[in-house]
Amino acid sequence: MLVIAERINASRKAIRAALEAMDAAAIQKEARAQDAAGADYIDVNGGTLPGREPELLCWLVDTVQAVSDKPLCLDSPDAAALAAALPRVRTKPPILNSISLERARFDGVLALALEHRTKLIALCQGESVPAASAEDKVALGAELVERLTRAGIAIGDIYVDPLVFPLGTDSRSAHATIEAIGELMRRFPGVHTTCGLSNVSHGLPARKLLNRTFLVAALSRGMDAAIVDPTDSQLMSTIYAAQAVFGRDEYCLGLIEAFQEGRLAA
Amino acid sequence: MLVIAERINASRKAIRAALEAMDAAAIQKEARAQDAAGADYIDVNGGTLPGREPELLCWLVDTVQAVSDKPLCLDSPDAAALAAALPRVRTKPPILNSISLERARFDGVLALALEHRTKLIALCQGESVPAASAEDKVALGAELVERLTRAGIAIGDIYVDPLVFPLGTDSRSAHATIEAIGELMRRFPGVHTTCGLSNVSHGLPARKLLNRTFLVAALSRGMDAAIVDPTDSQLMSTIYAAQAVFGRDEYCLGLIEAFQEGRLAA
Repeated sequence: MLVIAERINASRKAIRAALEAMDAAAIQKEARAQDAAGADYIDVNGGTLPGREPELLCWLVDTVQAVSDKPLCLDSPDAAALAAALPRVRTKPPILNSISLERARFDGVLALALEHRTKLIALCQGESVPAASAEDKVALGAELVERLTRAGIAIGDIYVDPLVFPLGTDSRSAHATIEAIGELMRRFPGVHTTCGLSNVSHGLPARKLLNRTFLVAALSRGMDAAIVDPTDSQLMSTIYAAQAVFGRDEYCLGLIEAFQEGRLAA
Repeated sequence: MLVIAERINASRKAIRAALEAMDAAAIQKEARAQDAAGADYIDVNGGTLPGREPELLCWLVDTVQAVSDKPLCLDSPDAAALAAALPRVRTKPPILNSISLERARFDGVLALALEHRTKLIALCQGESVPAASAEDKVALGAELVERLTRAGIAIGDIYVDPLVFPLGTDSRSAHATIEAIGELMRRFPGVHTTCGLSNVSHGLPARKLLNRTFLVAALSRGMDAAIVDPTDSQLMSTIYAAQAVFGRDEYCLGLIEAFQEGRLAA
């Protein structure tokens, strides 16, 4: 189970302010906290200031690597920003977040993944609207897996994200996403699946509860990575519990250790 | 989603003491609390005092019905105790908890269900050891559904419980149970599934967290009833969230109402 730490993202106000001020200490505090809380990868997203994304992504890579050895998840739809940042990565090969079937994105990001031998998050998003039904999500996911592996990406380096939409506007979206995860894991042995959680609860009360509930159901279908906030102890506790419940924690030793170390928010 | 309230059970110390003392006030306090907290059925179990189960089950039925209109779930493996209690039921038809394929139990409980037109919880338990693998759980569940419907029980009156075992001794049991629930719901349209949760976490830390995590995964496979403690607000909140996440709460109105009424423990 891969925990991709999501907090260093320009869509968050505090991070946007830190980016505008080039406040390395603020970024490094987030990096250290996520590293200590159990992140496997640290996502870095510098993308809301027009024209400055390549520069800021490079700065984020340097800034985070100065305080954490955790590998990075380079978060940009822009191949130029990824191309600028990749040569600066000193930790083990990063994840590129993300590729999709959109023509403007596919070739550029794929070439970088092949050149730098990275992992890839592959969004179930075609040229038009993203897939809503489980069938459409599986069809786009299958096309991604087939095109990427044909191009030379190892199947074990692909993390398919079926994309979940807000329940408030599409009450079937979470269920469709969960079904798609199960089907993709069955159809493509060795592939990984992941999902950003927070979209599911957009506009609703009890968002963290909804996000955790969706996460458990996705993990029960075999999802083996998630883009989450590892400093949220209830969420991390849910991941420990899910690993035990779904038979991925032999003798529940991981759960018991987390309990003994006081890391379980039961 | 049927919430079967589990607190009035002789295996709990306080209830055993209330049964020994025939303390109606203590039982009625539990009945009222579970009714108010959202129970759909109230389970009554009088079964640990040798030889007194028929008498005590009758007393529980009378005692609970004096303060709650909620239908009952008569909880005994003993057809004689169920036969004694059934004529006293004044609320709508109860659930009999439970029948299994064990010969000593099957015919007696089935005859009562047919006579009194009750619902039935059907345990995936044969004459020998209970089923451990998903395949064995489905096979026993299928045999129960087929034999019960052939005998005249409506499929919509059957609640199959695949029986989950402690993760500490069988780390695959929860996953097998969840898989069995999904397969039974697919194979027998109209049948219901349910599960007692707490066995899954026996002997482990963070039991309520594990129980909730297992519940979410089971609900994601279509389980539509559960034997739970409705006064546990975190558990009930998880049920509200799961109904929303799995597309069974149109426009999330149930979740939003629970939030507005202060019933969500997020």
